[in-house]
Amino acid sequence: MLEGRQLKVGVLGATGTVGQRFISLLGDHPFFVVHALGASPRSAGKPYEQVVQWKLSQPIPSYVRGIVVKECKPQNFADCVVIFSGLDASVAGDIETAFRAAEFAVFSNSKNHRRDPDVPLLVPLVNPHHLAVIPYQRSLHSPPLERGFIVTNANCSTTGVVVPLAALERAFGPLDAVLVTTMQAISGAGYPGIPSLDILDNVVPYISGEEEKIQWEVLKILGGIVTDADDKTKASRLPGQPTPKTFDMHASHPLRISAACNRVPVLDGHLATVSVRFVRRPPPSPQQVREALEQFTTEARHLRCPSAPRTPIVLHDAPDRPQPRLDRDYEKGSGVAVGRVRQCPVLDIKFVVLANNVCIGAATSSIMNAELSIAKGLIQV
Amino acid sequence: MLEGRQLKVGVLGATGTVGQRFISLLGDHPFFVVHALGASPRSAGKPYEQVVQWKLSQPIPSYVRGIVVKECKPQNFADCVVIFSGLDASVAGDIETAFRAAEFAVFSNSKNHRRDPDVPLLVPLVNPHHLAVIPYQRSLHSPPLERGFIVTNANCSTTGVVVPLAALERAFGPLDAVLVTTMQAISGAGYPGIPSLDILDNVVPYISGEEEKIQWEVLKILGGIVTDADDKTKASRLPGQPTPKTFDMHASHPLRISAACNRVPVLDGHLATVSVRFVRRPPPSPQQVREALEQFTTEARHLRCPSAPRTPIVLHDAPDRPQPRLDRDYEKGSGVAVGRVRQCPVLDIKFVVLANNVCIGAATSSIMNAELSIAKGLIQV
Amino acid sequence: MLEGRQLKVGVLGATGTVGQRFISLLGDHPFFVVHALGASPRSAGKPYEQVVQWKLSQPIPSYVRGIVVKECKPQNFADCVVIFSGLDASVAGDIETAFRAAEFAVFSNSKNHRRDPDVPLLVPLVNPHHLAVIPYQRSLHSPPLERGFIVTNANCSTTGVVVPLAALERAFGPLDAVLVTTMQAISGAGYPGIPSLDILDNVVPYISGEEEKIQWEVLKILGGIVTDADDKTKASRLPGQPTPKTFDMHASHPLRISAACNRVPVLDGHLATVSVRFVRRPPPSPQQVREALEQFTTEARHLRCPSAPRTPIVLHDAPDRPQPRLDRDYEKGSGVAVGRVRQCPVLDIKFVVLANNVCIGAATSSIMNAELSIAKGLIQV
Amino acid sequence: MLEGRQLKVGVLGATGTVGQRFISLLGDHPFFVVHALGASPRSAGKPYEQVVQWKLSQPIPSYVRGIVVKECKPQNFADCVVIFSGLDASVAGDIETAFRAAEFAVFSNSKNHRRDPDVPLLVPLVNPHHLAVIPYQRSLHSPPLERGFIVTNANCSTTGVVVPLAALERAFGPLDAVLVTTMQAISGAGYPGIPSLDILDNVVPYISGEEEKIQWEVLKILGGIVTDADDKTKASRLPGQPTPKTFDMHASHPLRISAACNRVPVLDGHLATVSVRFVRRPPPSPQQVREALEQFTTEARHLRCPSAPRTPIVLHDAPDRPQPRLDRDYEKGSGVAVGRVRQCPVLDIKFVVLANNVCIGAATSSIMNAELSIAKGLIQV
Repeated sequence: MLEGRQLKVGVLGATGTVGQRFISLLGDHPFFVVHALGASPRSAGKPYEQVVQWKLSQPIPSYVRGIVVKECKPQNFADCVVIFSGLDASVAGDIETAFRAAEFAVFSNSKNHRRDPDVPLLVPLVNPHHLAVIPYQRSLHSPPLERGFIVTNANCSTTGVVVPLAALERAFGPLDAVLVTTMQAISGAGYPGIPSLDILDNVVPYISGEEEKIQWEVLKILGGIVTDADDKTKASRLPGQPTPKTFDMHASHPLRISAACNRVPVLDGHLATVSVRFVRRPPPSPQQVREALEQFTTEARHLRCPSAPRTPIVLHDAPDRPQPRLDRDYEKGSGVAVGRVRQCPVLDIKFVVLANNVCIGAATSSIMNAELSIAKGLIQV
Repeated sequence: MLEGRQLKVGVLGATGTVGQRFISLLGDHPFFVVHALGASPRSAGKPYEQVVQWKLSQPIPSYVRGIVVKECKPQNFADCVVIFSGLDASVAGDIETAFRAAEFAVFSNSKNHRRDPDVPLLVPLVNPHHLAVIPYQRSLHSPPLERGFIVTNANCSTTGVVVPLAALERAFGPLDAVLVTTMQAISGAGYPGIPSLDILDNVVPYISGEEEKIQWEVLKILGGIVTDADDKTKASRLPGQPTPKTFDMHASHPLRISAACNRVPVLDGHLATVSVRFVRRPPPSPQQVREALEQFTTEARHLRCPSAPRTPIVLHDAPDRPQPRLDRDYEKGSGVAVGRVRQCPVLDIKFVVLANNVCIGAATSSIMNAELSIAKGLIQV
Repeated sequence: MLEGRQLKVGVLGATGTVGQRFISLLGDHPFFVVHALGASPRSAGKPYEQVVQWKLSQPIPSYVRGIVVKECKPQNFADCVVIFSGLDASVAGDIETAFRAAEFAVFSNSKNHRRDPDVPLLVPLVNPHHLAVIPYQRSLHSPPLERGFIVTNANCSTTGVVVPLAALERAFGPLDAVLVTTMQAISGAGYPGIPSLDILDNVVPYISGEEEKIQWEVLKILGGIVTDADDKTKASRLPGQPTPKTFDMHASHPLRISAACNRVPVLDGHLATVSVRFVRRPPPSPQQVREALEQFTTEARHLRCPSAPRTPIVLHDAPDRPQPRLDRDYEKGSGVAVGRVRQCPVLDIKFVVLANNVCIGAATSSIMNAELSIAKGLIQV
Repeated sequence: MLEGRQLKVGVLGATGTVGQRFISLLGDHPFFVVHALGASPRSAGKPYEQVVQWKLSQPIPSYVRGIVVKECKPQNFADCVVIFSGLDASVAGDIETAFRAAEFAVFSNSKNHRRDPDVPLLVPLVNPHHLAVIPYQRSLHSPPLERGFIVTNANCSTTGVVVPLAALERAFGPLDAVLVTTMQAISGAGYPGIPSLDILDNVVPYISGEEEKIQWEVLKILGGIVTDADDKTKASRLPGQPTPKTFDMHASHPLRISAACNRVPVLDGHLATVSVRFVRRPPPSPQQVREALEQFTTEARHLRCPSAPRTPIVLHDAPDRPQPRLDRDYEKGSGVAVGRVRQCPVLDIKFVVLANNVCIGAATSSIMNAELSIAKGLIQV
């Protein structure tokens, strides 16, 4: 996209597990270059390699080892064009708001701003058109922002499920109902995260807040954008002011979603069993569904985002695939894998989906979202 | 039940994992005493402790160590009143038939006879009334059998699911639809079973034949018995001949069941997420469902079967229970545990259920089925 | 020991993992009855079942569910004869000292007092004769204590290793050198303890302070008691004052010990490979070593301590035993298991030893130590 | 080494776990190109992707998917210059002999020829000078071979241990004694290999034949080559006949090695604790040992073998490293990692070593051995 150029980026929450993943992935990036690292005041002022407990099997990229960690304040990231946030939810809300106000483009993994009606909840393989809300988001600030904005990515368990759902809606029209059971990896809980005594030789059939996130986020991601322009009662706004835009939460076709979330002793890779019911009768056959999943393409790829997978949905034929350990790293975990597409005796179609929660389910999504924002002209480079 | 008396029993497939579990459980039994052990010709003629690769954490009961293993032929089990079969499906069919023909009461863990229209598929906490088919099963033999019969127990994943479903149907009338996703322990696959390279840090979203078993077996277990007596066209049978009886497969209310089965790195204990839809509208509330599960009682307990659990369904309040490692051994794994009863946005109610696949899901069920058969007078003691 | 009588005991650190194990084990005890529970001020004043995060597969004994937890102050435990401490090392030192000063018999799992020269480091299967130091320990208090004292048990990894070493020294005289590599279970680190991300599909070749503990504690446990009476230079003490006694740290025969400690993904049961060199030449043969291990007996058993195992060292013949999962629960984990006794090409003999770290390696040891103290008349009952 | 050229190679045992690893690693190789695949007669005649149960997380290299598998007979590999054998030991002996007789250069992972006195047991980071025996190996054939020979690599657990031992001997002279305890990954046992029921939540303190392999192979690898030329009694051989050469098994300095081998629930990466005693007194300090390990260099690197690691021994400073999951993939697993170098109270120095058993412990070694053979002119290219 940006032949030969380099863009300086900052990483907030750089010592956490998501921050480490950002740094590892950005070490190979064609144009993003990690320039500044933010962490808690306790770590500030020290070289990164001294304060991080590095937990990835790839070593720390050598060029970041000596970067002096700073507090997460906008003035410390002056040269950065893009900010990736892997901050913990306990602090992410205010810090990300402050960076936006300081005219940074913020790409967040935290849940804090996901439900903001003017912030896109962006799964880069699914709904980059939601970036159309950014101008309105900027206009809400006083004075209106020129460059700052926030984009969040979805919860890691949402991401895996919503990609094939989007492919199905694109091919066959709206869905009526979705039942999903997840089997989620321990890395989804960060570090230290799940105590080993809780998960070795065990499954925990509960992840706090997770089912609600899936049930709500899928609606925002698969839903459309509604413009208030036609709303006569709101016609009193001043000329030149941007038209309010927000998300319709799949309002045109009510979609019922039921999620049951489980933690399993797997390091990386969220697996889910999914059953869907289509609005359209008769529903598509398993073979038609398979073809639609295989033919699914993404705007991220069309726009030549360097982190976009060649194959956003890898369809497996073997009856026992996808499996987390064998399939989570395909194309660096930037796509999702689907298998076992077959008829559901209760709803219409059932299948299995796998997404690498630390890649497409987290840092890779943010990076791709930044690439999309550049491609669409929302970031001046 | 049989104060002070002892009944000699034989165990077929004694060296396998189910056989080992039978022997371990029967070591404590108030009246069953292991008297003869059957295994493959390769093991026959040698003391049990020499041919078994014992894989349980409880040591081999000392009294069986020296029992000389025999081939699985009826003449080798002459003194036994009851036969427990943990045979592999590749050989169980014919051997169990031969033992029945030789007038033994056979309680089998194998799948071979589960679909026989005259063989009860008995989950002891659910459908002991299906034993009413035994007289007819005997009458089909020529000459009719006096004491021999076969009773099978259900597949280990079926058992956990069907117990709460039975409780719900008893309290609220027929179910309309059930969606279940299982997370099954490796011990369900026997020994050597699952290679460790396939399951460490992994989930396998497929178990051959398992989904079909759940979808079919639940119907037989929850269904009623249909008598052909009213069927005029068959009225020509001779006086004194038993009335044909068979299983109606839940025919009065079509019940759609959809199962998705997964293998997880857990030693013992099959966990499942279940969503159900009732025929009755409005459906019961989560609180009503909780009460019905807690109040569920079993005929096995009323008949004082010594292996019957005091509490067939243990209801958990903690949001993250039941868990395999913490809850599988409650009351020696003879009941099931249910938690997280809540509304399902797609069907009516969803919950989590755990059953110890090697106990109530296998050997304990067979033993309880034998106890029930004695209590109901089907075995002369 | 105490036919029909019951002794009230208190448990300090009752909500922690060691505390839970105490409560679970004491639920079955023939004469100890849990009467009072101590925990942090945060938990004090509430019923036990409300403040504990119970992590054992055996349910909470019903009789302790409603006991109101108290702060760990002596006045709150007035009726208790024995105090079991599962306190964290960060607070155990002072609290245990205060309970001793208040005339309680304290049996501690913490490391704080293990190196006190007047406190027995007691492995109940090995060195109950070290209780002879208690009168001197009491005399050091001003005024001298009448009933109070502290006894500690050893570190969980020390315990498994020292039992067979004691058997070898008893049979063949002093050892010259011991090389041990441990593979320790995660439960040894308490809860939350080891993050699952650190140990799934992994081994951590380091446990802080553990190697030093083994190398020091074995010397104290296997060493003798030295009386200063013969020491002329110290003869100035007043008549009637108890003779100073302390531990000689195996001084008569310098014993070199080298430990390498590893954490492995096992729930319970510390396994260790051990190589030993004897002082005596020629050294005993593997067969002689096997016989000595099998014939090892304990004073705890002779004194009829109810928690003492019938077989303190279970010797395995199978080449691949003992294994943590299969052998850790033998006799409720109150003994140790040894296997693979064979010649060592570098030292003399090598073998494998397994000890259940949460039983004989922790709570069971404390309970047996209390039983020994009663048997030896150190506690008035 | 061979700029721009490509050499055709064959893989025997191509469907097994070692064979899969060969194919995966060779997919990236700068000059070896997989040309022919050999497997059992059952698989012969079918495309590779139809007969292989691919178990690696990297997908099958696309160019081998369609290669038709052949029986392991020399005539089926006519165009291949090099043969890599991942055959099972049950068949490897004769097949490898036949390929050598047919003038192939055979690089084997199997144990069958390791003890042949004329076959180098080659750890490429340690003893490439042992290739000097090849001319003599060829001369033993009748008629003498011109191109054929067999080189084996060491057992996977031997490899990790012997690399730092070689570094120590090079720096400080001969070792006197080595005590090693291994914690070995399940992939070392192949597929299906270890049943999951045997290893989940467990350690197995025994691997058949493994301790003997370490104790013997280290001597051969670290030993020198002895020429019979000086041996007067054998002087009767004909002029022109090559001088007999064989391995002296470290004969100049008797080295005692004691190994204790354990299987742990880790996918890849054999970890070992090692204690060593040097002949030289005083022995080197831990710091001197650290420096020697860091400064260790390999002929494979000097000869620019493309698979040779830049750093054959990565030395870790962090007290809890190396760890299998975090460190096994460093430089594609082609080196070894050492940590925790410290004094041993019994021998002189102790440390921890990690080697990726499926890479440097298996296929990577064979590939590097072939590269070395080319560099030394033993293969005509």
